[in-house]
Amino acid sequence: MEEIGFLGLGIMGKAMSMNLLRHGFKLTVWNRTLSRCDELVEHGATIGESPAAVIKKCKYTIAMLSDPAAALSVVFDKDGVLEQIGAGKGYIDMSTVDAETSSKISEAIALKGGSFLEAPVSGSKKPAEDGQLVILAAGERALYDAIIPAFDIMGKKSFFLGQVGNGARMKLVVNMIMGSMMNAFSEGLVLADKSGLDPQTLLDVLDLGAIANPMFKMKGPSMTKSSYPPAFPLKHQQKDMRLALALGDENAVPMPVAAAANEAFKKARSMGLGDLDFSAVHETVASSKGST
Amino acid sequence: MEEIGFLGLGIMGKAMSMNLLRHGFKLTVWNRTLSRCDELVEHGATIGESPAAVIKKCKYTIAMLSDPAAALSVVFDKDGVLEQIGAGKGYIDMSTVDAETSSKISEAIALKGGSFLEAPVSGSKKPAEDGQLVILAAGERALYDAIIPAFDIMGKKSFFLGQVGNGARMKLVVNMIMGSMMNAFSEGLVLADKSGLDPQTLLDVLDLGAIANPMFKMKGPSMTKSSYPPAFPLKHQQKDMRLALALGDENAVPMPVAAAANEAFKKARSMGLGDLDFSAVHETVASSKGST
Amino acid sequence: MEEIGFLGLGIMGKAMSMNLLRHGFKLTVWNRTLSRCDELVEHGATIGESPAAVIKKCKYTIAMLSDPAAALSVVFDKDGVLEQIGAGKGYIDMSTVDAETSSKISEAIALKGGSFLEAPVSGSKKPAEDGQLVILAAGERALYDAIIPAFDIMGKKSFFLGQVGNGARMKLVVNMIMGSMMNAFSEGLVLADKSGLDPQTLLDVLDLGAIANPMFKMKGPSMTKSSYPPAFPLKHQQKDMRLALALGDENAVPMPVAAAANEAFKKARSMGLGDLDFSAVHETVASSKGST
Amino acid sequence: MEEIGFLGLGIMGKAMSMNLLRHGFKLTVWNRTLSRCDELVEHGATIGESPAAVIKKCKYTIAMLSDPAAALSVVFDKDGVLEQIGAGKGYIDMSTVDAETSSKISEAIALKGGSFLEAPVSGSKKPAEDGQLVILAAGERALYDAIIPAFDIMGKKSFFLGQVGNGARMKLVVNMIMGSMMNAFSEGLVLADKSGLDPQTLLDVLDLGAIANPMFKMKGPSMTKSSYPPAFPLKHQQKDMRLALALGDENAVPMPVAAAANEAFKKARSMGLGDLDFSAVHETVASSKGST
Repeated sequence: MEEIGFLGLGIMGKAMSMNLLRHGFKLTVWNRTLSRCDELVEHGATIGESPAAVIKKCKYTIAMLSDPAAALSVVFDKDGVLEQIGAGKGYIDMSTVDAETSSKISEAIALKGGSFLEAPVSGSKKPAEDGQLVILAAGERALYDAIIPAFDIMGKKSFFLGQVGNGARMKLVVNMIMGSMMNAFSEGLVLADKSGLDPQTLLDVLDLGAIANPMFKMKGPSMTKSSYPPAFPLKHQQKDMRLALALGDENAVPMPVAAAANEAFKKARSMGLGDLDFSAVHETVASSKGST
Repeated sequence: MEEIGFLGLGIMGKAMSMNLLRHGFKLTVWNRTLSRCDELVEHGATIGESPAAVIKKCKYTIAMLSDPAAALSVVFDKDGVLEQIGAGKGYIDMSTVDAETSSKISEAIALKGGSFLEAPVSGSKKPAEDGQLVILAAGERALYDAIIPAFDIMGKKSFFLGQVGNGARMKLVVNMIMGSMMNAFSEGLVLADKSGLDPQTLLDVLDLGAIANPMFKMKGPSMTKSSYPPAFPLKHQQKDMRLALALGDENAVPMPVAAAANEAFKKARSMGLGDLDFSAVHETVASSKGST
Repeated sequence: MEEIGFLGLGIMGKAMSMNLLRHGFKLTVWNRTLSRCDELVEHGATIGESPAAVIKKCKYTIAMLSDPAAALSVVFDKDGVLEQIGAGKGYIDMSTVDAETSSKISEAIALKGGSFLEAPVSGSKKPAEDGQLVILAAGERALYDAIIPAFDIMGKKSFFLGQVGNGARMKLVVNMIMGSMMNAFSEGLVLADKSGLDPQTLLDVLDLGAIANPMFKMKGPSMTKSSYPPAFPLKHQQKDMRLALALGDENAVPMPVAAAANEAFKKARSMGLGDLDFSAVHETVASSKGST
Repeated sequence: MEEIGFLGLGIMGKAMSMNLLRHGFKLTVWNRTLSRCDELVEHGATIGESPAAVIKKCKYTIAMLSDPAAALSVVFDKDGVLEQIGAGKGYIDMSTVDAETSSKISEAIALKGGSFLEAPVSGSKKPAEDGQLVILAAGERALYDAIIPAFDIMGKKSFFLGQVGNGARMKLVVNMIMGSMMNAFSEGLVLADKSGLDPQTLLDVLDLGAIANPMFKMKGPSMTKSSYPPAFPLKHQQKDMRLALALGDENAVPMPVAAAANEAFKKARSMGLGDLDFSAVHETVASSKGST
């Protein structure tokens, strides 16, 4: 494959680009803080001076940025993607952004004649390092087909979901289910505890049954110790619940369980827990005071 | 091990007792409809005339009955367990009953000097056949220790949970989490569909992520076809939600997500879906009419 | 009218019996603590030695007791109602009890040949003093017709609701609506406050509109000061929510708003607020900490 | 008082302006469909050719338009308010619009040097005719003070709520409480019916108690007949619930009861009931089929 551009070398971007390098891809990388490029250069990457410079040099450029603001800035600001994108060039944004941000980028690139793919991922640091991400791509099918060799390195599976916005929507649906499950799990842990059952035994029983899943296994032990180191901050989970409910509102889908879960996350925010892990919603169920 | 008694040869009881026979246990079996004993006899079991007769003959007797009424009848009726139970004999009830029924049986047996263990299981027909049940035992520790060789054949894992009632409570907590998850899953499937995403793709994405679990995998495909063959009837799931919420009420545990899920199951009952599988709660979210 | 018996002179019973005396009824009264009878005697009442003695003397006897335990004790204990009730005598229980307690009393009295009416009231101390109670009667129609002159003194309106249990059920339905409204009101007060609106102005606006009601007017001002002097204890309101939800469960009525309200009351109990007024559910919405 | 301008003579605007005329105000009126001005002219009003013409002629101009689009059009379009507004002139928008629309109009008028007041009302046709509206004003205090004589004619009470947007917010809070109450009421009506109680008797009992309110009295009888003639369309009520929940989200206010009510309104929309009165949410609780 030709040389690929890679914008954004945060925790995720670094892991993903290192994987590409290790599997023989040639990369031109850029990061706002240039020093983060060093390790990549040691492994053979070239540095691009700006997003525009990377786009100019490469037929395909992948971006992995921290949030919608960063995703927009890299495209629309001076020396940004728009200055060099055009016919024959493809831009693949793997950042997690809302459908609106994605559409804005998509339209601007289309106006210049370029191709666009949104491709948010499911999975965090460890799966990124292990090339085990799940990639939710949407946009131009031809670009998806062209970039599959890179997706195959970074992820264990990629999906093509149709028009731009569908990648973001699929992530919302998954995160909405996840948020409701986390609440159900929290209620179960407290119910077990207050009913005289050992929460650790509940974890063991759950892990052997039909609803066993990695999240319960991973988060349960720290939750029983009221420890919530932020892997996925509660305020971001609540935002995703809100956006999923808004999507349901648009389409007249009643979602009473998600709505109850959302209010619990809001309660947690009102308790000052928004920056902790989303499993801290557990604290809205637990109670230190005696009951009456 | 000495000969073991086995009362109740329904779908579950038959599978469990066959496993014991195949692994070298000697069994005396009894079933209300005697003809269901035939297959067991072919494999070497002896028939007991009545629950009392089985208890008289065996040091340990296991029961696997269909519901609380059957569980009580086998113990308290004429020719029932109580007539022969006494010092040195143990009765292990693996039926799924509420804590109150379990306590009633436990107390009656204790008055006669016998030992009691409640041991409801998690898992249905297939795990019963494969010896892969999860066994939630509570009551007398010594009886638990004595019967472990049989539990090891019937289940992949058994837990000893303390005093009588804890087995029933643990099942409620697990089923409560399961019921909330089923609702979250249903909401996600409909939200995906109404938002222009392919529900089948959602299933694929879920199966690769942190909340992948056997239930989603097993139930999802039929749910997307609005097919709900009853494995675990919705009215039973709703009953378990109700009992779990009552347990939370006793202990002042707020459970807003479980409460919302319970109301959805009640809505499903009001739509006449109580005898279908509990995944039919999906129908309360879906809607055939156009929205406004 | 002939002499009437009156059992139970707590806050409510005293106010109700004083009203009967003032309007020319002759009363024989009894109370567990006899000294509470003094004021009634000053106004012309006679004292009965026991519930049995009162029943023996009077054709109709009204009871107003504090709870189901007291209501049962007065009927079933030594020197109780059952010892003297019989053909031609009527017993009217105006205590607030559950349908089951009411049925138990009703059946015992019927076995003795007596007549029974349950007649719980809506309204507390002030309406009792002013003869402005609302009376929810159920049981024997002939007894209802006979006792109407007394109901007309104690209440502004009485209803005959059919079979025993319907009075208790009607109270549950009303209290369930009331509990949900209190939650909606609490959410509104906090939402106003956090959105930069004056909660007192919200009270004024509400009081002028289509949802103006005495409860908002009466409870609002103290709620905005986080003051909850117990008029109707939160734990009793939560118990009524639970029983109303159980009634809905029996009849497959989905009640998602009542269920959410019930969980908020449970949350309040878990915060130790069960003995305060039910308006203290406001504290589950409000939050002292900064949000994130 | 000087001559006042009045833009918008729909059902509400006509009733309000007629009241002003009857009480001696001189009016210059404008309506998109001019023929609607005739009746006003018969009672002494003058016609203005356009919003701009009305503003030019009058120191103060009141608007009562059907929705945000109309409110914006009258201000920003050709011959609109902006062309003539300026120092010394006041514009009072009594339409029901969202805070954002209100702010947009406010800012545009401020740039021209004019004064602005938003003043949405609580109350519909009848209160408008009777001068019994409740007016929720926000914006410039001096303009509020100046227009009070007109408010006193049109309403029974007006409030000044501070900065622009607060009028819209106050309406949302009130409507949110109203929407939750309507759900609680619906659940109560169905619960009564399914429990063997007469819903009409429930209405009578409610009307005598602490939660008696005009809405229950007005809507109850038709709801028991499943009749929902649209006074306030369900889809608009649901929109207000959504916006109130969004306001709560901004301020981290947990609103579990409002959220449950919102999902019921969404369920009603999914059943095709969005254009009926918001009391049609009753249909989400009721069920024609037999339950299991």
